[in-house]
Amino acid sequence: MYIGNMSSGRFIDQHHIGALIADYSGMASHNVPSTRIEAAGASGSLAFRQGVMAVASGMHDVVVVGGAEKMTDVSDDASNFILNSAADQQWESMMGATFASLHAMIAQRYMHEGYATREQIAQVAVKSHLHGALNPKAQFQKPIKLETVLRSPTVAEPLTMFDCSPISDGAAAVVLCPLETAHEYTDKPVKVLGTGQASDTLALYQRPDICSFEATKVASRMAYDIAGVGPDGIDLVEIHDDYTISELLALEDMGFFPRGEAGKAVESGETEIGGRLPVNTSGGLKARGNPIGATGVAQIVELVTQLRGDADKRQVKGASTGMAQSIGGTGSTAVITIMGVV
Amino acid sequence: MYIGNMSSGRFIDQHHIGALIADYSGMASHNVPSTRIEAAGASGSLAFRQGVMAVASGMHDVVVVGGAEKMTDVSDDASNFILNSAADQQWESMMGATFASLHAMIAQRYMHEGYATREQIAQVAVKSHLHGALNPKAQFQKPIKLETVLRSPTVAEPLTMFDCSPISDGAAAVVLCPLETAHEYTDKPVKVLGTGQASDTLALYQRPDICSFEATKVASRMAYDIAGVGPDGIDLVEIHDDYTISELLALEDMGFFPRGEAGKAVESGETEIGGRLPVNTSGGLKARGNPIGATGVAQIVELVTQLRGDADKRQVKGASTGMAQSIGGTGSTAVITIMGVV
Repeated sequence: MYIGNMSSGRFIDQHHIGALIADYSGMASHNVPSTRIEAAGASGSLAFRQGVMAVASGMHDVVVVGGAEKMTDVSDDASNFILNSAADQQWESMMGATFASLHAMIAQRYMHEGYATREQIAQVAVKSHLHGALNPKAQFQKPIKLETVLRSPTVAEPLTMFDCSPISDGAAAVVLCPLETAHEYTDKPVKVLGTGQASDTLALYQRPDICSFEATKVASRMAYDIAGVGPDGIDLVEIHDDYTISELLALEDMGFFPRGEAGKAVESGETEIGGRLPVNTSGGLKARGNPIGATGVAQIVELVTQLRGDADKRQVKGASTGMAQSIGGTGSTAVITIMGVV
Repeated sequence: MYIGNMSSGRFIDQHHIGALIADYSGMASHNVPSTRIEAAGASGSLAFRQGVMAVASGMHDVVVVGGAEKMTDVSDDASNFILNSAADQQWESMMGATFASLHAMIAQRYMHEGYATREQIAQVAVKSHLHGALNPKAQFQKPIKLETVLRSPTVAEPLTMFDCSPISDGAAAVVLCPLETAHEYTDKPVKVLGTGQASDTLALYQRPDICSFEATKVASRMAYDIAGVGPDGIDLVEIHDDYTISELLALEDMGFFPRGEAGKAVESGETEIGGRLPVNTSGGLKARGNPIGATGVAQIVELVTQLRGDADKRQVKGASTGMAQSIGGTGSTAVITIMGVV
């Protein structure tokens, strides 16, 4: 068992949550090994990647990967302090930077370079809420208008409340096993085609270019190489849209669009369900919710649901490959997963 | 890169320490993937086990496993609160239980059953400090007398200050690669023969027998099976002696002595350097120190040092196999590693 969790130690004063979940789920009575993984927002996806390795190495035949975060037991201020401690405390958080302000700086620079307009950035949220409205497990299930994003209270200019993913409680889980034995457990197995992981500087100011996350690029290349497919071979994508601007960077860093083209693609509806490349059919972090440790696992759940053809109203027709991108911090950790139908 | 760390989030208000260490060590400039592992006191050993899997699965050719904890930046009260949150908050810590008091209950029961005398339990600390005095990297490098243990202030009856491992700052690291390429990096490679991991209930009160840790037994069997050796084939052992009593349980659970015999073995000197089964030649958690996330990795460093014949004054002559036992909580997570000369 692998558990993705960012900070049960601060959110609920409980460390050792791997053992706790093994215990409370009844698995400890079988002495099932349980390992907690943390990489801020990428905790869940990284737990999934460890699970893949545990099966691929032959160490374990069946692995459960879970992700969870309980964020609403503390005050908003406390919650923000905890989240900000995934940035560089010494050089960012203690200087007053928050993830919202760091991403606002990215957005400002991105617009300054002419890569997207404010409206194109805001359109990401409109699209995510449109998809979230089709997902009965989404935190927000109401479509919103472009004006709603633009006119809601500013969090850090230019980002408003609707550009930011919410505080959420949530959990998600998947079961992994070798492909040869998968039919013992399910009629619709889905295959892990490739995974990738990369790091970058913890602090944003140390990067030569803040309009791109190098870790996403490197992790994507790693996953594409292992999977033997490229961006053209991907039918749908789950992206770490902790902030609207993050989705545009990711779409370009993963190779789906050239620099400065993602905003136009979102605006033209290309990333909606029914478009050329449906993005965040689950509603994404923005509308599905962002319970930190669960987020990366929830992305995998969405890919599996889509690739099984079980996504109901939000089903991407004929989807045979899916890709998930997960981020810890401001691109300090990136995890990529590519999955396909068997 | 894998990083074992229990709670940088609380000890130094910094989450996402995997990315931080990749960054500050210069590895992020090569986008090296970095994953933080937490399982309370077993964080470091579990990071090592993930590193072994990452190499064994073919996912990575070279893996650095590090462990670190900075515990002295907070008050003793805060430190105790953080440590206690690795026990079951709801049913143990919030009721006033501490790890010292939980281990004191184990010690009381163990003595009540006639498995060991108070003096035999205390002798574990005397032996650990004897070994620590031979380790230039130990936190405490002075031998102590049996009376010192017995007459020092009581922490939780019958355990005194000298029965308890200290608060420590520290770090440790090792490098892993496939055996076939190890000679490119070192003249003295050491082989990982087997690893094991198991979970048990988070809370102690739920166990049918508190004089034994089932997780240690299960993880030991797993590691012995993979390694193809048994207790008789092990030349030296590093044990998670967070409290003196823990060492006696471990020696029995790992199969080195029948129930109720470990105390006598320690008393007779069998577990000293030069004895039949040298235990905690590093000084153990008791004398080498217990920087939580680093502890499990430091055990591996000691095994490597001994198996290379580089342990100087504390060298176990002719050591060709070594075993490490690492615990999170009161036996809620157990991790076992068996290593051997090539």
